[in-house]
Amino acid sequence: MREHKLALVGFGNVGQALARLLERKRETLARDFGISFKITGIATGRHGMAIDPDGLDVPAALALMKNGGSLKTLSAAPAPGSVMEFIQNCPADALFENSPVNVESGQPAVDHLKAALERGMHAITANKGPVVHAYKELTELAAAKQRRFLFESTVMDGAPIFSLFRGALPAAELRGFKGILNSCTNLLLGLMEEGRSFDEAVRYAQSIGIAETDPSADIDGWDASIKAAALITVMMGISFKPQQVDRQGIRVVTPQMIKEAQQAGERWKLVCTARRDGDKVMARVAPERIPPGSPLFSINGTSSYVQFEMDVLPGLGVVESDPSPETTAYGLLADWLNAVRDM
Amino acid sequence: MREHKLALVGFGNVGQALARLLERKRETLARDFGISFKITGIATGRHGMAIDPDGLDVPAALALMKNGGSLKTLSAAPAPGSVMEFIQNCPADALFENSPVNVESGQPAVDHLKAALERGMHAITANKGPVVHAYKELTELAAAKQRRFLFESTVMDGAPIFSLFRGALPAAELRGFKGILNSCTNLLLGLMEEGRSFDEAVRYAQSIGIAETDPSADIDGWDASIKAAALITVMMGISFKPQQVDRQGIRVVTPQMIKEAQQAGERWKLVCTARRDGDKVMARVAPERIPPGSPLFSINGTSSYVQFEMDVLPGLGVVESDPSPETTAYGLLADWLNAVRDM
Repeated sequence: MREHKLALVGFGNVGQALARLLERKRETLARDFGISFKITGIATGRHGMAIDPDGLDVPAALALMKNGGSLKTLSAAPAPGSVMEFIQNCPADALFENSPVNVESGQPAVDHLKAALERGMHAITANKGPVVHAYKELTELAAAKQRRFLFESTVMDGAPIFSLFRGALPAAELRGFKGILNSCTNLLLGLMEEGRSFDEAVRYAQSIGIAETDPSADIDGWDASIKAAALITVMMGISFKPQQVDRQGIRVVTPQMIKEAQQAGERWKLVCTARRDGDKVMARVAPERIPPGSPLFSINGTSSYVQFEMDVLPGLGVVESDPSPETTAYGLLADWLNAVRDM
Repeated sequence: MREHKLALVGFGNVGQALARLLERKRETLARDFGISFKITGIATGRHGMAIDPDGLDVPAALALMKNGGSLKTLSAAPAPGSVMEFIQNCPADALFENSPVNVESGQPAVDHLKAALERGMHAITANKGPVVHAYKELTELAAAKQRRFLFESTVMDGAPIFSLFRGALPAAELRGFKGILNSCTNLLLGLMEEGRSFDEAVRYAQSIGIAETDPSADIDGWDASIKAAALITVMMGISFKPQQVDRQGIRVVTPQMIKEAQQAGERWKLVCTARRDGDKVMARVAPERIPPGSPLFSINGTSSYVQFEMDVLPGLGVVESDPSPETTAYGLLADWLNAVRDM
């Protein structure tokens, strides 16, 4: 039985769900993987940080977050002054990076992941930013350190997409894909089908925590473009930026258009499409009217879907229904297990 | 570069598609996997057999099959007297078993796979029979010989289902699944929606090679039950027989029922459902009326779908569109690559 030490940067909904999931899977990990673990450090932006080489008291950490206390009370050791100092000092074999991310630069997540890899930790993240901004650099650094940079949860939460192509589809050549990758706009279009105005739909989505205070990244198709760029970069091996996506958001979709589609038995969806042509890729994010014969038609609420076209399989689709912080946390756990069982 | 020797038992549509796919991927296998190969033996029921330790002339073998010739003309060596003798004598590291199978006993495929494993070959098959009749025995024998028994193509052709659970979904607990696993009945129900009678639909499906001369295994839900049993046995770890499935075929679906569903915007589908309850499983195959909000609604023609419910992911669906002997062949290739790259 090998004991692993884990460090968590970011301890919001996803980080907390990961801590609970790890605890719940403790027996399974011991039995099926010969793995035990302790969480040796947690760093947050607003709730302090704590390091304990003997393992932090996770239930106490979860309670502190609930009550708005500071994590630094968890450990007698002096708390690090910054997240970078935390990463330099925390004794850990893997870093889970879930800090708030700036998708325009990928920072500070990129620096966190780099520092972790430099110290010989596996670097695992649910942040899209580092994948579109530093995939090549982080992957090469990981290889040089004989560690892994993994990011399953960045696209379709915990659904296995990157790991599917890494493992289950050897020698397959990805020619293109089509899908619904942004949960927020899919929910908004569904709310508009129920008769709400665009603004009402946005307010409702904000009230249940699906839309951001400034929802433009979702509504204008940026989030979908980032995810499309991540899939292209990683799975087609062609470095691709979100700005290269021919992008149109859902602001152009009027209640009248929704109604007309419904009368024809169809639905508006924000569709991502990518198609490879030699060394080039054309990618597009735009609203499309979808007939009921398409698998995209039945993707409701915050669910998502992607369909891959390969030389060896003309159509392989993956649906993820009812995502939550728990499913994102599972993607992180799966990445970690895949990293350590390959070693 | 390691050279692998491959033996093929069964050289019908799937075996031939595999031979062509291997040839087409020769460069990719060398570049990405450091693998070269030759096909050292092919055995058929009605077109003879041939073994050549230096590798058979595959284009010539394909031409012989097309022209109705005998494979034994391919090699100067005397042809083996039986398939078992072929397996005993063919110098090979992997056996691809695609002989016609009796799903009631799994024979002769089970004996072929056993003989191959005993000789230290990987045993790979697209036959469902051996999975439901001898999964445990063949898997244990493979482990004892440090080889693999793999069968991705038995359910949903080349779509990664078993390999997904083996690799990309560590520590996940499968609670149940629901899907459309039989292509033939799905096609028949679609033809009935176009206004054909049941008998007309069957005749058409027979004319394009989708329905068998005796189509009862598909129509009465046996094929779907066998696939459900295979998923349960392998992915839930509970030995389960097709006879244990609560099974109803599509003969009960009348043109009138099809019409009524269409008028309500719904479709009849032959649905497999399985649900785990402790150490027990309830499984059912039966026609169900599906509304357009379900992912099952859009599964057309010979496409298939399965949706998994796990403790860590509430809904993960996999769609396979437009299967063919080529997609089945890819499942076999993927199994082989996964077997040898793990070694």
